[in-house]
Amino acid sequence: MLKIRSIKKMQLLLEVARQEKKRIGFVPTMGSLHEGHQSLLRKSKKDNDLSILSIFVNPKQFFANEDFALYPRDEKKDEILAKKEKVDIILYPSIKEMYPDGYKTYVDVEQLSNVLCGESRSGHFRGVATVVAKLLNIVCPDKLYLGQKDAQQAVIIKQMVNDLNFPSKIEVMPTVRENDGLAMSSRNSYLSMKHREEVPVLFKSLKLAKYKILKGETSAGQIIRQIRSNITQNTSGRIDYIECVNAETLQPLRTLTGRVLIAVAVWFGRARLIDNIILRIR
Amino acid sequence: MLKIRSIKKMQLLLEVARQEKKRIGFVPTMGSLHEGHQSLLRKSKKDNDLSILSIFVNPKQFFANEDFALYPRDEKKDEILAKKEKVDIILYPSIKEMYPDGYKTYVDVEQLSNVLCGESRSGHFRGVATVVAKLLNIVCPDKLYLGQKDAQQAVIIKQMVNDLNFPSKIEVMPTVRENDGLAMSSRNSYLSMKHREEVPVLFKSLKLAKYKILKGETSAGQIIRQIRSNITQNTSGRIDYIECVNAETLQPLRTLTGRVLIAVAVWFGRARLIDNIILRIR
Repeated sequence: MLKIRSIKKMQLLLEVARQEKKRIGFVPTMGSLHEGHQSLLRKSKKDNDLSILSIFVNPKQFFANEDFALYPRDEKKDEILAKKEKVDIILYPSIKEMYPDGYKTYVDVEQLSNVLCGESRSGHFRGVATVVAKLLNIVCPDKLYLGQKDAQQAVIIKQMVNDLNFPSKIEVMPTVRENDGLAMSSRNSYLSMKHREEVPVLFKSLKLAKYKILKGETSAGQIIRQIRSNITQNTSGRIDYIECVNAETLQPLRTLTGRVLIAVAVWFGRARLIDNIILRIR
Repeated sequence: MLKIRSIKKMQLLLEVARQEKKRIGFVPTMGSLHEGHQSLLRKSKKDNDLSILSIFVNPKQFFANEDFALYPRDEKKDEILAKKEKVDIILYPSIKEMYPDGYKTYVDVEQLSNVLCGESRSGHFRGVATVVAKLLNIVCPDKLYLGQKDAQQAVIIKQMVNDLNFPSKIEVMPTVRENDGLAMSSRNSYLSMKHREEVPVLFKSLKLAKYKILKGETSAGQIIRQIRSNITQNTSGRIDYIECVNAETLQPLRTLTGRVLIAVAVWFGRARLIDNIILRIR
């Protein structure tokens, strides 16, 4: 397993690989790897000749009072997991090389970036789209692997890749969960014991919503109210949002029809957890 | 000479070329080719195995009351010139394939885009950066050729290519001029006879400025005043701007030092002409 810190070196190496017609799979992460990332790495290894992992805690997607400084980092543990998933190259770009003095260019995906998580984390998805555009140009993968847990991120990156004609394909892999249903996330490490016991309610409330919808409920308002009461009655979490939106446009729905994304974001102490399900209705 | 209208087809074709280790040169244009473009095409052919020309009048870099509809288009004449310069492939993307319904992604190069031409053509350089990002992903050239006549465009695209880690190199070629000094431009065709006789004053005033600077003038204000009086006394043009800026940051200078870009934009009837010189001072 190669570890590369220089962007230039990475580009030269992969240029050679491409001329040898090697298929390149790419999993961009902020490190602090868990089983969700492992499922992406496994798929990347299975589908490609070269499996590349990047680990970069991207300052441009955090702001002033967010958890950039506190975001968990553990290179040693990450490398053990990467080796286990037979990663060929880990790219660790430096902040200085990614955003040198005088950096000025940003990628905006309009309409999709200011809803859901974008509403409370203004500018977050601009930072995400920008760093992924950069990484796609550095790695030029045949395939990019993303997790369904970050549903909005996946929709935005798909839109950017199509709109800007990046030659990479995108595969979105299912959310990986703990036994009690909690979606795997690096930020779960922020949870207190008490909150850790409460948080499985998020996925339970989404599953209950799915059940109601399968039973015939078509009102987004009803579903949202039900999830809200479920979370407020059974946890001490502070709700950021609960929304039912079109899974492609991310626009809010009143009547549940087509591909529907039901997404929640809830604060537990300093951990802001997100979860979602996608349903195809009728 | 191949003519290709499908983006997908272009990408497949060039993927094969790259695997054969062919060096790819690329000249993006809006058509209506003139000797300025020809000098870029000649360099692209000389430096590379495959020379690609794109012709696309990009609606995203014009607005409401600009000349998108009127912009000169002449496929036949363009193809004669392209053949003369031994272009291997002309790409004619359609507006529909470049900007399909639901298109949402834009590239912003901050600070450089709202000065000079960006001040009177708000959003213009966002459209330019976006279309060039798309074309770079479609063609993935080793080298991209631009003209010095569009000095601000060249600075912005260089910044974007560096910031977003596009693997292409950029070469900026000198402005090609008519015998009387007028910079070649597709928009020169808009000029009336009377204006055509006046417009060589633009380059003359820039050359006079250069002479004064070589003689020791270091005040931007003095130089700007002198160019202004030269243009107003000798033409009927309406000045949009006359500026002395740092050639990399495009920030206005008071004292002329370092690499200095002296740029002018002047309206003659419905033709808005631009011209510039770059001086390295001390």
